[in-house]
Amino acid sequence: MRNIAVTLGIALVPLSAVAQKPAPPAPAQVAREVRDYRMANEERIVRELSEFLSIPNIASDTPNIQKNAAHLVGTLEARGIETHLLPIAGRGPVVFGKLISPEAKRTVIFYAHYDGQPVDPAAWTDGKPFEPALRNAAIEAGGKRIPFPAYTVKQGAAYNDDWRIYARSASDDKSPIVALLAALDALRAKKIPLAVNLKVIFEGEEEAGSTNLQRTLELHKNLLGADLLITADGPVHQSGRPLVFFGNRGDIGIGVTVYGPVRALHSGHYGNWAPNPAMELSRLLGAMKDAEGRVLIEGYYDDVTPLGEVEKKALAEMPVNDADLRRELGIAKPEGGGKKLVELLMQPSLNIRGLRSAYIGEQAQNVVPDKAEASLEARLVKGEDPKKKFEQIAAFIAKQGFYVIDHEPTMEERRAHARIAKVVYEGGYRASRTPMDLPVSKAVVEVVKAATGNDAVIMPSTGGSVPMYIFDDLGLVWIGVPIVNYDNHQHSSDENLRLGHFWRGMEIYGAILADLNW
Amino acid sequence: MRNIAVTLGIALVPLSAVAQKPAPPAPAQVAREVRDYRMANEERIVRELSEFLSIPNIASDTPNIQKNAAHLVGTLEARGIETHLLPIAGRGPVVFGKLISPEAKRTVIFYAHYDGQPVDPAAWTDGKPFEPALRNAAIEAGGKRIPFPAYTVKQGAAYNDDWRIYARSASDDKSPIVALLAALDALRAKKIPLAVNLKVIFEGEEEAGSTNLQRTLELHKNLLGADLLITADGPVHQSGRPLVFFGNRGDIGIGVTVYGPVRALHSGHYGNWAPNPAMELSRLLGAMKDAEGRVLIEGYYDDVTPLGEVEKKALAEMPVNDADLRRELGIAKPEGGGKKLVELLMQPSLNIRGLRSAYIGEQAQNVVPDKAEASLEARLVKGEDPKKKFEQIAAFIAKQGFYVIDHEPTMEERRAHARIAKVVYEGGYRASRTPMDLPVSKAVVEVVKAATGNDAVIMPSTGGSVPMYIFDDLGLVWIGVPIVNYDNHQHSSDENLRLGHFWRGMEIYGAILADLNW
Repeated sequence: MRNIAVTLGIALVPLSAVAQKPAPPAPAQVAREVRDYRMANEERIVRELSEFLSIPNIASDTPNIQKNAAHLVGTLEARGIETHLLPIAGRGPVVFGKLISPEAKRTVIFYAHYDGQPVDPAAWTDGKPFEPALRNAAIEAGGKRIPFPAYTVKQGAAYNDDWRIYARSASDDKSPIVALLAALDALRAKKIPLAVNLKVIFEGEEEAGSTNLQRTLELHKNLLGADLLITADGPVHQSGRPLVFFGNRGDIGIGVTVYGPVRALHSGHYGNWAPNPAMELSRLLGAMKDAEGRVLIEGYYDDVTPLGEVEKKALAEMPVNDADLRRELGIAKPEGGGKKLVELLMQPSLNIRGLRSAYIGEQAQNVVPDKAEASLEARLVKGEDPKKKFEQIAAFIAKQGFYVIDHEPTMEERRAHARIAKVVYEGGYRASRTPMDLPVSKAVVEVVKAATGNDAVIMPSTGGSVPMYIFDDLGLVWIGVPIVNYDNHQHSSDENLRLGHFWRGMEIYGAILADLNW
Repeated sequence: MRNIAVTLGIALVPLSAVAQKPAPPAPAQVAREVRDYRMANEERIVRELSEFLSIPNIASDTPNIQKNAAHLVGTLEARGIETHLLPIAGRGPVVFGKLISPEAKRTVIFYAHYDGQPVDPAAWTDGKPFEPALRNAAIEAGGKRIPFPAYTVKQGAAYNDDWRIYARSASDDKSPIVALLAALDALRAKKIPLAVNLKVIFEGEEEAGSTNLQRTLELHKNLLGADLLITADGPVHQSGRPLVFFGNRGDIGIGVTVYGPVRALHSGHYGNWAPNPAMELSRLLGAMKDAEGRVLIEGYYDDVTPLGEVEKKALAEMPVNDADLRRELGIAKPEGGGKKLVELLMQPSLNIRGLRSAYIGEQAQNVVPDKAEASLEARLVKGEDPKKKFEQIAAFIAKQGFYVIDHEPTMEERRAHARIAKVVYEGGYRASRTPMDLPVSKAVVEVVKAATGNDAVIMPSTGGSVPMYIFDDLGLVWIGVPIVNYDNHQHSSDENLRLGHFWRGMEIYGAILADLNW
């Protein structure tokens, strides 16, 4: 451990030295101290991030994903954090860490993942997703590649806030991990004690579906005692402002296949007589929502847990950028009958993800297709059960006159039923939403607001889906405090991190570690 | 020519010898005489067909398609038919032939095409579309490959009617060409004179869209004087019975693209707000037809030229196999509100050929797609104008609230219009229908019925589309007399010819050549 500590240039401050418990400085003060530390150490912090980004981290690339875990162990242990690997066969382990602060009465777990989405190097501007590159602005804004500045004693802040680091996981999620550890270094350097015991859960297969996370955590439940879990995954608000969010939606996939004749038929010889499954499917889908986008499926909104007063107030205070988004996205009239985007995200949705029947364009053939397929998706909000949602949709399809089955129809079924739909539940999970009026919720909002000059956006739930129900099931209250820029090309090529967001994230995490109290 | 004549074993009977004009034998007698000749010459006739089928005939394969034309020239000239090649740059020429019968007052043109659909050898059971194979039944019926029987003097009819020859163009259209020429040989051998002057038009790019046919024929209009054109293209009736048809439908293609946001959006962060183009398209398509399949587009049926009394009577007399088809195709309830298939084929149709939006199944992504596309097709009947039909459809789309354009929308258009549809005319042509009460129409029906023991099915129009309007435009009255089996896998792999149909086709063509008179 000594060697790694030396490499990282970290002073191993004895824990007892910072456990004297003077009154903690206020969050704004902590943010300033972290900033001060960061400006003197940018080269080292960026180097730590770059070294981490240089280890390829696709979840299915077993040797490399395990190298990432080993690297994390070294990084954590160098900081005196007790570390355990929670193994998953053939995958990257869950990296668990624990740092006890003797006087703390609360324990906070930070969650992030260290694996990244698969890469297609040819689609990356620089062609090398695992060789971090620095640019003086976003590529879309004409950013040019520049060398990483060399360390000089004279030059304090060598990096510009608008510069960006391009690499896989530069934002999703390696940089929040590095920001958290750098914040810890800053507090120690500034002799600011931790207000909470810190635990970390760094997952190695989130981008591969987190299929083993729940089981693995259940197996090691004894390690997971905590009063709060903070997830660092995801970007900040579209406005660029910091974000605290308390929920996300669930998500289920539904495959619908409507059948026509048993084989595609010549449209000249059978058209007007053989039922066209693309037409039947169109009629079915068109009946699911009204022109304003409201779902017409019976009971679709019945189980929604309404927002409380605090949630409603937070929603009302959120920045509204609908007009800008409409302009940027070329949308003349959104769905929702005039409701704001953020309001609509608090409702369950029904979305056609894709359609397919026979061929179009130059490949089009003069046939009555044998089938037409739609991929549907429902986003769920708190209170809704995934299987019940699926059943509502299947019942609606049956009510439209379809014989609903879960298999390819037999010839007997085809001969017996005028309209046949195969409706398949493709899996999914429920929403999760932490009440905003819990003392811990209020405390987190207060610290983040104070650390950011009251700039943070507070959101009862995002519209997206992450399986946070896993933490619910473990009895953990969770809150999201992401730090990376919104335009980070997450999951795509040219993923990047805007350094200004990275620096600010360190300040926010530092303030939480130093001041969170309820 | 002598050499080819010897190879083919054709006796070059001087025309003067058959021009003595005795009273012609009745069609049934001609059919018997042709059959008698055929049974003594099956090996030779099949060999002629096999040699022809062995020359690859994809329209775009210039060297080979021209070999086919050269082969045809040899075959025609060996029979004393005056032959001209009507050239098309880079394609197979139109092979024109003329055989004057001094006493004939009428001239009949036979049309067929010698090119075939492209082949995917891997999809063929025997892997070699241009090496004709003989089977003792259809592959679907368990037919096994057997050797072509060797010629023996003792054995008269060496072939079974149910045997099939497998090769590209075995049915579509090389066999009708060979059947016509074999019928001519039979009449000469039996000293039956021709009742009509015979001309032939053998096209070399029908399967590539006949793009040069009209222009080429217009250029050589002086050759095309005739009282009737018989098209040999296509199969007989589904019942297996011979067919005479007097029309076919026109056909136009329409591409419809409905637009959503300018790029696919995360369905969690924008679903319920960003309009979904797959939903908009579904609603649009679903509005085009009622549940019985009747098109709801204004004026859609207004221009239909009604069937006359003769056509209605023919329709009423057609075999009805709707129940069998329903059973075979797994259709519980056809469209059309109870009307028979053959009645529905006399109406214009609107068919969704294909649908596409984003991805389905395992490839599905959680997005609001940026666009949704449909390929539509309208079949037209006599009286309807292709461009007007397209305009009706475009007007309907506009009436549903879409801003209809013919290009990708600009950002300004996207921002200004809630619903945008690109509607593109993909080309097509009008229907063609020869009145069934013309003297020539009655004469053809009479001869074919008489030659087939009154077994022929008489159809005012098929549901399919072939650009017969080209012959209309040239002032030629046309009637369809196809001969090949319906289950011939036309356009697909394992194309085949049932020999019984081939033999019967020779008899029908022989009777027409010997007896057609009006």
